[in-house]
Amino acid sequence: MTNQKQPFGDRLDQAVREKRSVAVVGIDPTLALLPPDLASQAREGTTGLYTAISDFCVGIVTAVADLVPAVKPNIAFFEAFGMHGLSIYKSVCLTAYNTGLLVIGDVKRGDIGSTAAAYAEGLLSAPPVDLQEIATLSTEAFQEKVGVLMGPHDALTLNPYLGSDSVKPFLDIGLENGQGFFVLVKTSNPSSAEVQDLRLENGGTVAESVARLVNDWGKTSIGESGLSSVGAVVGATHPAELGRYRELMPDTPFLVPGYGAQGGGAADVVAAFRSDGSGAVVNASRSILQAWKKDGTPDDWQGAARRAAMAMNSDLREALQQAGKWGL
Amino acid sequence: MTNQKQPFGDRLDQAVREKRSVAVVGIDPTLALLPPDLASQAREGTTGLYTAISDFCVGIVTAVADLVPAVKPNIAFFEAFGMHGLSIYKSVCLTAYNTGLLVIGDVKRGDIGSTAAAYAEGLLSAPPVDLQEIATLSTEAFQEKVGVLMGPHDALTLNPYLGSDSVKPFLDIGLENGQGFFVLVKTSNPSSAEVQDLRLENGGTVAESVARLVNDWGKTSIGESGLSSVGAVVGATHPAELGRYRELMPDTPFLVPGYGAQGGGAADVVAAFRSDGSGAVVNASRSILQAWKKDGTPDDWQGAARRAAMAMNSDLREALQQAGKWGL
Repeated sequence: MTNQKQPFGDRLDQAVREKRSVAVVGIDPTLALLPPDLASQAREGTTGLYTAISDFCVGIVTAVADLVPAVKPNIAFFEAFGMHGLSIYKSVCLTAYNTGLLVIGDVKRGDIGSTAAAYAEGLLSAPPVDLQEIATLSTEAFQEKVGVLMGPHDALTLNPYLGSDSVKPFLDIGLENGQGFFVLVKTSNPSSAEVQDLRLENGGTVAESVARLVNDWGKTSIGESGLSSVGAVVGATHPAELGRYRELMPDTPFLVPGYGAQGGGAADVVAAFRSDGSGAVVNASRSILQAWKKDGTPDDWQGAARRAAMAMNSDLREALQQAGKWGL
Repeated sequence: MTNQKQPFGDRLDQAVREKRSVAVVGIDPTLALLPPDLASQAREGTTGLYTAISDFCVGIVTAVADLVPAVKPNIAFFEAFGMHGLSIYKSVCLTAYNTGLLVIGDVKRGDIGSTAAAYAEGLLSAPPVDLQEIATLSTEAFQEKVGVLMGPHDALTLNPYLGSDSVKPFLDIGLENGQGFFVLVKTSNPSSAEVQDLRLENGGTVAESVARLVNDWGKTSIGESGLSSVGAVVGATHPAELGRYRELMPDTPFLVPGYGAQGGGAADVVAAFRSDGSGAVVNASRSILQAWKKDGTPDDWQGAARRAAMAMNSDLREALQQAGKWGL
């Protein structure tokens, strides 16, 4: 077991090297992704629905646990199922945590200072180091001890629109706990250009200016790996720009969404990595979760997810090797 | 009872005229705000804690219900208390809704299209028109029917950093239900300048560019009041800029935070209003919630909140009258 108090940047780097994988699996459950057996269970009523969603998420996490360094549950897809959904979110985070996966909570929070501090309390409290012990507790003792926690999380995604004082309260609590962050710089969606690509009077774009802020926020947390614990989200759907963001944030871990269902390929993401192949992880959600559809193996949806994760690993390793960047 | 299917912009305008108030009370509970009786209850253990938080929030909502058109619970402060906190959030929203207050859910969501749709489902489903009936149901029937709902909400705050496709899924579901939105344009916090005030190559700032997007997003929902249902958040802490934002968004309802504890005064916010005095509401949170401290009336914290809300109403009415804008 690694020392959980290590900086997040080092823990991410280590997990990537141990698993020989730069892939992250996004856990974004919807009814449309459920294989037939779980889908019919979900139609039986609310209990069946919540059980099916939970079984699917936990099933995907355990299926890929030995293949990838991290999972990224997006809390939106759980909040869509209300309070029960958020309970499932917590249990998915805990399951992933207990299998040794890093848990990146995709919550995209951003609010003014005093409010950000409240979010940080709920999302970052009960640091991972304590959860080793907590995982051994009874349900009741667990509820009493970490009932307030929305996680556990090793890292969170944050929205930068409100500037430093919306980010600092998270850093103040999280960095000490060995937790990290991925701040939205350039997102993978088509309309990201409307705000993020606005050109500035003094040159560059809004996203490039945010990149400089992220680089500054991370400067005090650069670990032995050379990576900081304040990362950046930069979409795979903008391959031409990835190199520029890497230049602006040389020590920043990148979380790269948009691979797979959103259209980004392995060749599109190599520029996100540092020259030694470190410094980035690539997320895929739908292409892993619904791999059983493409494979035509509805009764082996976990196997299909495993195969898709392995294919993604090979795909990314090959692209990095071809670019002379595979050093793991 | 007003027809809940009316556009949100019209409902907001009507509520302001009925209450003769442009004040919104932010429900942002923290332990430090609890009056002594509730604070000692909160120290008795988790049950006491959750009861104290709930009693405080519900007590504030009922204390100001006949004085203001809307309340704005910020979900961050509830998420800080974990799953129990989120249950309290729901019950505060329902209580406010049942007293006839408009409920502005301060959730500041922003994510890519497919994810935004998931958020919208959880945050906007079970539209207000149904909740009239639902409020009469037993707890069990209620759980079954609206267990999935994170609300009820009449309006939500949204973050614009990801552009149109992060906002549209909310509009698609909400506008039909008579629900509205307040998109962050220029926030009240000190570091808002870091991203929002960046100057653009073609003139103006990032926030002004976002203001134009917000104006466009609202164009199809302008109601009989002349107000759209897609509003903007513009902070009271930037009085010199409010007029400019009003020019850029002539038909947009403004939600103006930063009055009171954050330093904005009534004279600072008049430029946010249209010439006839319509089109804006001003939020105060801490100055209402902790009015008992200033008044030295810990045993009458509800009365202190009432008095603070009435003083805020007078203060704002007077400033608007002096500017020749009070037409209610």
